[in-house]
Parts: sequence; structure tokens; C-alpha cells
Amino acid sequence: MFNAKAYAAAAATSPLAATTVARRHPTGHDVQIEILFCGICHSDLHQVRNEWSNVMPTVYPCVPGHEIVGRVTKVGSAVTGFKPGDLAAVGCMVDSDRTCPECQAGLEQFCPNMTLTYNFPDKHLGGVTYGGYSDNIVVDESFVLRVPSNLSLAGAAPLLCAGITTYSPMRHWCVSKGKKVGVVGLGGLGHMGVKFAHALGAHVVVFTTSPGKKDDAIRLGADEVVVSRDANQMQKHVGSFDFILDAVAADHDIDSYIQLLRRDGNLTLVGAPEKPLAVAAFNLIFGRRSLSGSPIGGIRETQEMLDFCGAHNITADVEVIPIQKVNEAYDRLLRSDVKYRFSIDMASLKSE
Amino acid sequence: MFNAKAYAAAAATSPLAATTVARRHPTGHDVQIEILFCGICHSDLHQVRNEWSNVMPTVYPCVPGHEIVGRVTKVGSAVTGFKPGDLAAVGCMVDSDRTCPECQAGLEQFCPNMTLTYNFPDKHLGGVTYGGYSDNIVVDESFVLRVPSNLSLAGAAPLLCAGITTYSPMRHWCVSKGKKVGVVGLGGLGHMGVKFAHALGAHVVVFTTSPGKKDDAIRLGADEVVVSRDANQMQKHVGSFDFILDAVAADHDIDSYIQLLRRDGNLTLVGAPEKPLAVAAFNLIFGRRSLSGSPIGGIRETQEMLDFCGAHNITADVEVIPIQKVNEAYDRLLRSDVKYRFSIDMASLKSE
Repeated sequence: MFNAKAYAAAAATSPLAATTVARRHPTGHDVQIEILFCGICHSDLHQVRNEWSNVMPTVYPCVPGHEIVGRVTKVGSAVTGFKPGDLAAVGCMVDSDRTCPECQAGLEQFCPNMTLTYNFPDKHLGGVTYGGYSDNIVVDESFVLRVPSNLSLAGAAPLLCAGITTYSPMRHWCVSKGKKVGVVGLGGLGHMGVKFAHALGAHVVVFTTSPGKKDDAIRLGADEVVVSRDANQMQKHVGSFDFILDAVAADHDIDSYIQLLRRDGNLTLVGAPEKPLAVAAFNLIFGRRSLSGSPIGGIRETQEMLDFCGAHNITADVEVIPIQKVNEAYDRLLRSDVKYRFSIDMASLKSE
Repeated sequence: MFNAKAYAAAAATSPLAATTVARRHPTGHDVQIEILFCGICHSDLHQVRNEWSNVMPTVYPCVPGHEIVGRVTKVGSAVTGFKPGDLAAVGCMVDSDRTCPECQAGLEQFCPNMTLTYNFPDKHLGGVTYGGYSDNIVVDESFVLRVPSNLSLAGAAPLLCAGITTYSPMRHWCVSKGKKVGVVGLGGLGHMGVKFAHALGAHVVVFTTSPGKKDDAIRLGADEVVVSRDANQMQKHVGSFDFILDAVAADHDIDSYIQLLRRDGNLTLVGAPEKPLAVAAFNLIFGRRSLSGSPIGGIRETQEMLDFCGAHNITADVEVIPIQKVNEAYDRLLRSDVKYRFSIDMASLKSE
């Protein structure tokens, strides 16, 4: 074991602060990565503040962070895919059982024995896993991704969660040239959805409650912007969408979007409002429409997404902050005051 | 034009009673059918009582009935698929525009200019279309189905709505051997769902609130019966279903069924509760599950369904009644007091 510098919360009501956590020395299959950037995901905030206490109670100290990019510093003797000096990335998972049908299908995100990157039982050291708000992480090479060298590392970090969470359902529901695709909510996830739908060749319509976001939506790749509070604008799009990505985590009128779908159209939720959504059966029956959800993607698809980003030069729009501003960033996140994702420059941790 | 005997409602609050309605003489492409049996669908009752006044207000007199089987008595000069003496059937649609992408895809049920069998603008005679509670009907041959000769006609009639409504989503969502399929609600639609899922080779689980329905569910083809009020029984099936057909038109806890789906599993609604359903986003996201709806099928698929029924000797379980008992049957329908569909013996109309 060795000590890694990290930022951790000591309790649900404590701000994050500098500390050290134990990491294992790389075993035969492990890759040790010096973390260069880590994105801030809203999940980090939920977990740190124990807001999911009923399903995933937080164990303290809690080191969040699952949008990790860095450089390989050491590899175990059996590692074949990485060598010191390589760029590398880690997302929301660091292990799975590799034997279940989900793992066999390359869908580790559905493995019943999958290990999340933080706040999950650590098979190696006991206790829980510690995430990417740290200077180092040690991960089995099967869960380490390659980062295309042309991408900005600060902007690449959020691809590991916000990126794959929006890319995966678009691939699953066959977003492609000629399709009409909607994106609801222009935040950390939504802005990635716009970039991917555009790069996949779709006609992209952004729905927003803020008319002020129009120019930015167009800049990100939208072909049209609809102010969702305007019933006339919404009416014009009834029955026309092949796919809608709904990235809104707050309560909202889902029916008003479902009825915009054409026959066999799908609306996929990637944001999870706390209260149940009210869904009118008739809107699903007439048009054989479907409402679904999607979490992250599997490792194979995450690598595919990173390679796609390399080929299309796609990264997240980020505001880079030093780790010392992480608590302030959390407060701003709650006000949606970021365009569109915070990325922590982990060099700042060296001074702690 | 000629007069056909029929049973019609004169107003939302009137019982159905004998009358005559005008039918057109067959044009070149028309088939005239002497109706032998007509199933009673809950939609008939909704329409007769103007319970859908906001979307499909009822025009009186209203002759309902869209589960029609009979014998061809006349054909137009251009008709190639039918001749006098043939068995024939008509379902929920009698025409469509035949040129839109939906029609081109054989999905006339989604045609924006589709004509329903009753209470829909009649292109030929003006006024509205009149349904199958009648001794005769005249329909374009493109919307007339062939009935396998081995089927009981009384039991075949409900195939035209209850049958296709349950068969179509099972085909769309790939119900087949090795799949685990649930059917929620053992009524007119649900009992057909059980028969189809069983004949398609699936492992069939019926969910019911009535333990007393167990033996009948097994007889219809269920492999297991789960009493849905029993949380322990429900818990045993979490994450295990490929497909669930939900045929319940009353308000119910949809989440308790969504969580029974495995990864990529689908729950399709064919019943339409009046109140919006409360759907937890998390249940859809974890498991990439989907919730959808489905109406009837297209003409091609309806014929496929009838041929499938012929090959597997599938008909609805019906209680045959004379037309004179139709008002009583409606009252019993409201109490779910029928196993599992009423089929009107239209010979009874001759005495009116």
C-alpha cells in the first residue's frame, strides 16, 4: 500500500478537504495512473452528501470522482495494453465479475457484481473504493481506457461519465444520419448529447426553458432550438422525433415530450427526477412509442466512444478549476452555474 | 344503398336497440359480408357511452363492433381475394390512405388518414361508419381478412381486436422460445396474451389479483401464476422478465412490474388507465428497461395472426350471446363478469 493525496468529505455535512488515502501497489493486472484531470459529476455531490442513503449509503471518508484522465506511471507484470507514459482514463467502474452474461456481452454496467469507482466495497484493501479527486489511482487494466492523443485532457475527463451516458443510448437507439433527435436540458449531460447527435449526423433539436441558451445550443451543434414553455413551438414538432434524450433531473412534464415522438420513437431518460414521472398510457399506445432509461455504457462501448471523440475531436466544454475550489464548484453546480462541466486540474493537489 | 339490420345506441344514455342503417352496394373493390359473429370489446362500450368525448366524440346513432367474422355474399368486379361463400373477417379498420409511409410499411394502424370501423367519417356515404352489431357490412377487400376454416367462428371474432392487440406487441418485442413473458390482467386481452405467449414458446407467468384465477390461467397456457398483491411472490421475479404485457385498464402500480424486467426488458401497455401512470426513472435507467404501448396491428400482421391461430388452433374463450342480451352483457363487462369475451351470435338479429 501507499498513500495517495486526495480530497475527501469526512461527513455528509463536511466540505471536501485534503487528506491521504491508501492505494494498493499494482498487482499483476493493475495499472497505476497519475491523475491529471477529474471531472465533477452531479453524482459526486449526491454521494458526498449522502443523498442516496436509502440505496447507496455513503461511507466516510468519501473520495468522489469518476471522470478520470491521467498518465500511466506503473503497470503490473501481466499488463499488456498499457505502459508507463501512456495516457489513460477511468470511468464509473473499476471491476466486475467478468463471468456473468452481462460481462460476457460487454455490458459490465449491468453486472450484478460490478464495482463502482468510489464508495463501493474494495475487494483488494477492504473498506470502500476511492475515486478520482486524488493524485493517483490503481485500476485493473480491463477497466482502464485509452485516450486519443488529440483530445484536450481537461475536456476529455467528463467523457468518462457525461460522455458515455449520452453516447450509449444514442447508439442503442440507432441515432444516425437522417434521424431527428431531441435533447432536453442543456447541462453537463445534455451538451454532450448535442455534440454526439450532431456528430452522428442527426438533425438535432434542443429543448430548453431558457431562450438565452439558443446561441450556445447552435454553437454546440443544434439545428433548432425550441423553448419548451412555448406550447405553439412544441405543437409544431408533435409526432416527428425518432429519439429524444432527456437529461433533466428535475421534475418535468414528460408527456409533452413523449407526444413529440413519431411511430416507434423512443425517449430515454438519463437524468433521474426524484419524484415518479406521470406518464399517459395513450401517448405510448398511439404511436407504439417507448420510454426508457439508460445508465453508463460498458467498457467496450466506452472505448468506442473515446475513439469516436478522437475521430470527431469532441470533448466536453469545461471550466477548469483547482481542487481547492471544489466546494465552491459544488454550490455553483446546484445553481447550474457552469458551462458545462467542471474539470479539476489535479496538479493543484500537489501543493496540499 | 341498402338497409342493414343493426343494433345501435341513439344517445350516450340509451340502451342499444334494433334499427336499420344504410350500407353501400359493393363498389368494384368491395366485399359484402353477412356477419355471423361479432365480439364485444370494451371500446364498444366506451364509444357508445361517449366516454371518449374529448378525443373521439360519438355520433349517434352509433353501431359499435369491430370483431367481425362472417361469410362473403357479394364481391365487386375488381375483387381478387374473395368470392361469395368465403369466410371473412373485419377488425378495427376499414380503410386508410395507402400512400403514407405507415401504409407503405404495412402499418395502417398508424396511418394519419385511417378509417375506423365505426364512428368514423364514412368516405362513401357521408355520416359515420357503422360497425359489426349488424347483419351485413361492406368493406374494401384490402381491409378484409381470411379466416382459417378450422377455427370456431364465435371464438375467432375476438381475434380481430383482442387477438391482434396482444399478438402484435409480442411479435414486435420478439417473444419466442426461451423468453420469460408476463401477462398482467386476465381478461379479454390478457387471456389472449397467455395463449399467444404460450404458443410462441415462452415461459408464461400470469399476474393476477385473484388467487381464484390460478387454475384457469394454467389451463390457458400459463406456466406460473403470481398473486400480485403478495410482495414475496413478486420479489422472487425481480429482474427476470424479457417482456411483460400489461392489459390492465385500471390504475395500478406499474413500477412493481417494471422492476421485474431484466436488462433491456420491455413492458408494453395495451390497456389504457385513465389517470397517468407513476413511473420511477431509476427503474428504467438501471437495466435499460423500456415502457411502451401498442394499439392494434396492421392488416398484414392481422392476417399473420389469424394464420398463426389456424396453425395452433387458437381462439378466444367466449360466451356466446344473442344480440338481445347486449345491454346486459355491457353491465357484466363492467364487473369483469365474463370468461373471457362476449361473442354475439348475429343469427339472433334476424328475429328483430
